[in-house]
Amino acid sequence: MSDLAQRIKVIAFDVFGTVVDWHGSVMREVEAMQLGIDAAEFALAWRAGYQPAMREVMDQGEWVILDVLHRRILDRVLVDFGLDDMDETTRHHLNRVWHRLDPWPDSVEGLTRLKSKYMISTLSNGNIGLLAEMAKQAQLPWDVILCAETFNKYKPHPDTYLGVARTFDLDPGEVMLAAAHHGDLEAARNCGLETAYIERPWEYGRDKAKNTAPWEKNTLHTTSIVDLAEQLGC
Amino acid sequence: MSDLAQRIKVIAFDVFGTVVDWHGSVMREVEAMQLGIDAAEFALAWRAGYQPAMREVMDQGEWVILDVLHRRILDRVLVDFGLDDMDETTRHHLNRVWHRLDPWPDSVEGLTRLKSKYMISTLSNGNIGLLAEMAKQAQLPWDVILCAETFNKYKPHPDTYLGVARTFDLDPGEVMLAAAHHGDLEAARNCGLETAYIERPWEYGRDKAKNTAPWEKNTLHTTSIVDLAEQLGC
Repeated sequence: MSDLAQRIKVIAFDVFGTVVDWHGSVMREVEAMQLGIDAAEFALAWRAGYQPAMREVMDQGEWVILDVLHRRILDRVLVDFGLDDMDETTRHHLNRVWHRLDPWPDSVEGLTRLKSKYMISTLSNGNIGLLAEMAKQAQLPWDVILCAETFNKYKPHPDTYLGVARTFDLDPGEVMLAAAHHGDLEAARNCGLETAYIERPWEYGRDKAKNTAPWEKNTLHTTSIVDLAEQLGC
Repeated sequence: MSDLAQRIKVIAFDVFGTVVDWHGSVMREVEAMQLGIDAAEFALAWRAGYQPAMREVMDQGEWVILDVLHRRILDRVLVDFGLDDMDETTRHHLNRVWHRLDPWPDSVEGLTRLKSKYMISTLSNGNIGLLAEMAKQAQLPWDVILCAETFNKYKPHPDTYLGVARTFDLDPGEVMLAAAHHGDLEAARNCGLETAYIERPWEYGRDKAKNTAPWEKNTLHTTSIVDLAEQLGC
């Protein structure tokens, strides 16, 4: 373990679900708008458009940032929920809820501890402006914001994982990806990165416990970012 | 003034010479190497290759990060100073002195105060890894690192200044560039940004006082980053 802790120089974090609670945050804002809909289902429906929208961008080859994709999906989901009469100002404000997501309770402490020893970075499909505004509001102490927009590729494209290593002139094995999603970690592992799984059983809401069983291929399995810091001696 | 302080949302900083003392930092490291050369002149010669190297990249159209340009220039300057026998490990380490530049005495306090009210960003021709490592060592509290590498253009290309505004979905007039170089500020002003000049009379060393007279076209003229914070009510 201390060998690993010595070798890695940068820890890059997936953000949505891993560092911040997108479901709870979106649900709370939508509930507060008193739209007469099931806010938990609305949050899930909005997020369900996320992977297909990014795949479409990657297939078509013209770069589009996540703020724009979130808005396209929102416009469709509003129709599905019978809210097509929502005005432009409200839509624009609601779309930026993704800039205002709340961190999980352990995120700020865990990141702060890891920052004392490692370069800590985002590696998110969110755009730079979204991640910078989120960090400022949620007090996430990133050393640097790297993301899909930095590399003009959405995860799981290898250019994103390898891009972190290249940014710091490191070998892939000197970079660790921390994420609450085994698929993200698998793609990083295929590029030679070390991987840390973080359990986030309530990512999809309190009614939908997620299977957080360990995958043995991950370098580390952790219950929180604070647990990750402890396992790495921070 | 309070109108301006209200309107701007992001302050982007030039870095080399404005936030950090490249000449003093390079000179001190070269002196400590006891190479038997004039370290102050060596620093100036290295830096003199900077603008031509960036112009060449922009003319040729293929992106090359500043770390690589710094190394190309270094290899030439070592020949000029009769140090062509320097080994690869030493050259590599010396080239990364640009990641280890010391801030001016007011930089950390000034940035920290401005950060309480504004989004603070770099807008440097340095690459992302260089700026992130510099920030970590010098404790520069950036909210986000934006730079030539983010936009694949070197300043003074308009895509860099306008890129900051676009990143945050702002009008150019909601962004201020702070820099110790009137040319950089002029290019930003031509893109519609607000501008703050910061006096750095010793940028080229204690022997070469720089003319820091105000240009009336700049929105603000300041004597330090702390003075900028004070003028903006932070």
